[in-house]
Amino acid sequence: MRELGVQTLLDLLGIFVFALSGALAAVRQRLDVVGMVVLAEITALGGGIVRDLVIGAVPPAAFTSLGYVLTPLAATVLVFHWHPQVARLMPAVMFFDAAGLGLFCATGTTKALEHGLSPLHAVLLGVITAIGGGVLRDMLSGQIPSVLYDRQLYALPALVGAAAVAAGWAADLHGSAVTAAAAALAFALRALAMRYGWRTPRPRGVTDRP
Amino acid sequence: MRELGVQTLLDLLGIFVFALSGALAAVRQRLDVVGMVVLAEITALGGGIVRDLVIGAVPPAAFTSLGYVLTPLAATVLVFHWHPQVARLMPAVMFFDAAGLGLFCATGTTKALEHGLSPLHAVLLGVITAIGGGVLRDMLSGQIPSVLYDRQLYALPALVGAAAVAAGWAADLHGSAVTAAAAALAFALRALAMRYGWRTPRPRGVTDRP
Amino acid sequence: MRELGVQTLLDLLGIFVFALSGALAAVRQRLDVVGMVVLAEITALGGGIVRDLVIGAVPPAAFTSLGYVLTPLAATVLVFHWHPQVARLMPAVMFFDAAGLGLFCATGTTKALEHGLSPLHAVLLGVITAIGGGVLRDMLSGQIPSVLYDRQLYALPALVGAAAVAAGWAADLHGSAVTAAAAALAFALRALAMRYGWRTPRPRGVTDRP
Repeated sequence: MRELGVQTLLDLLGIFVFALSGALAAVRQRLDVVGMVVLAEITALGGGIVRDLVIGAVPPAAFTSLGYVLTPLAATVLVFHWHPQVARLMPAVMFFDAAGLGLFCATGTTKALEHGLSPLHAVLLGVITAIGGGVLRDMLSGQIPSVLYDRQLYALPALVGAAAVAAGWAADLHGSAVTAAAAALAFALRALAMRYGWRTPRPRGVTDRP
Repeated sequence: MRELGVQTLLDLLGIFVFALSGALAAVRQRLDVVGMVVLAEITALGGGIVRDLVIGAVPPAAFTSLGYVLTPLAATVLVFHWHPQVARLMPAVMFFDAAGLGLFCATGTTKALEHGLSPLHAVLLGVITAIGGGVLRDMLSGQIPSVLYDRQLYALPALVGAAAVAAGWAADLHGSAVTAAAAALAFALRALAMRYGWRTPRPRGVTDRP
Repeated sequence: MRELGVQTLLDLLGIFVFALSGALAAVRQRLDVVGMVVLAEITALGGGIVRDLVIGAVPPAAFTSLGYVLTPLAATVLVFHWHPQVARLMPAVMFFDAAGLGLFCATGTTKALEHGLSPLHAVLLGVITAIGGGVLRDMLSGQIPSVLYDRQLYALPALVGAAAVAAGWAADLHGSAVTAAAAALAFALRALAMRYGWRTPRPRGVTDRP
């Protein structure tokens, strides 16, 4: 019971932070309140919805949980009224975003394994769970998804966290302790990458986008 | 039987009008005939397909009904040959588009409730049914979806119509009379918003997109 | 057994070539290695994933086959290290892309028919299988999907191949010989269209996109 409570609380925290980034993107793109709500919901829930459609867990969790739908609305209200202040807190938001990334890749991989996917495919779905919402946010904002070009270590920490869950599963280690450890690993890697400015490689001869 | 006939006729009318807007968008973007067909089909059927995937009603209605697929083709033929005339009729098209919006939000919410979703989630899916096709149309045309920024009351009337269906359902009122009343309510609100130029709010300090 | 082997080999070849086009698009858009992997996977597997979600074949084939996921990675490695050489081979790539198009429209239609869809809807899904991955590739690259405006015969050969499978099915002809013949027909039509520069029509008064 207590464990369920902690897991749910972490889930909602991840959703809240992802929703903040969606609502802030809407402000940057000068969208109206409809755009803010849509981007907040999609950023927070989009990755999980895609995962659930793929594994056949319908309706997706986002369409059975009240908290999942209402939390992005709370983030939207906050950004609507205090977006300059929230934008100034971006370093803190990025910190929590890293936490959401870690959490989502670990829980996404676990859910895919529980639905019988192979470790490789579960890792793939874990990464999709973690980065899918941000990709949809950028597509709806008329941008190329930043994760595809900005050379930050963002998908890679998610991949490492997802692989840790799958490796644990293969060694018959599962349960929330493993999920938590993998989430922490992905979070730490992402935080270090931000701290030290680690970059992903690009093919030879390719320069920055203008 | 007669009721089924009226419902189907209204459905096809909504699909036809949404398809017109898709085919006209293709002309504005200077697409070829393939682009016209794809945008007509997606605009008309996209919202319902997403709804059906989410509630697990597969194959989606669009992939089991001949009329749903052929009606957008008829709209494409019309726009292909007479797009200047159709574009001149835009005020009338917008009027029928409002009817399609009302109809789709009401029938989408009803279908979601029938599949066991909670009232809140059914409302969400009703709105997705109504605006999803237009969002996909704009994304495929390389545009930010207009519903996210243009400050027209478009998603809000859909939300009100969907909420009316859900409120009726909670009060044990359902059937096609309730659906029709909710559709009419959304339609009326949308028509009034167009007539009087009502606008959605934007966060403080945000100005028009260039 | 032997037949299965040939079919699988052809599938993987189609996936490989589509993945090449995705990875090359990523290089043109100056994406990083994450963008290359994502575009390679989506271009190769996106159409089939959409088809499988629509017919309810979950998890989609891409999430149950190792080869389907690993083949685009191989294409990414190739393009990462030798993209100037691969780009110079574009005529050959386009030739194999036509083969992939033929194969995907035929197998997609067959799978949809086997899942009980009507011939019309199976044809629709066959075309989606063939062109869906490229559409998603272009959307993720911030481009209007080229199949919607570039007036090449690309969707049409897929439509013809899909219709040939459906016509065979209606005449009680199925099996891999029919699928292969339909794939060859679509391939030949696409190759002729490239050779002779055949163009799709556009509505009156519409000129080239800038």
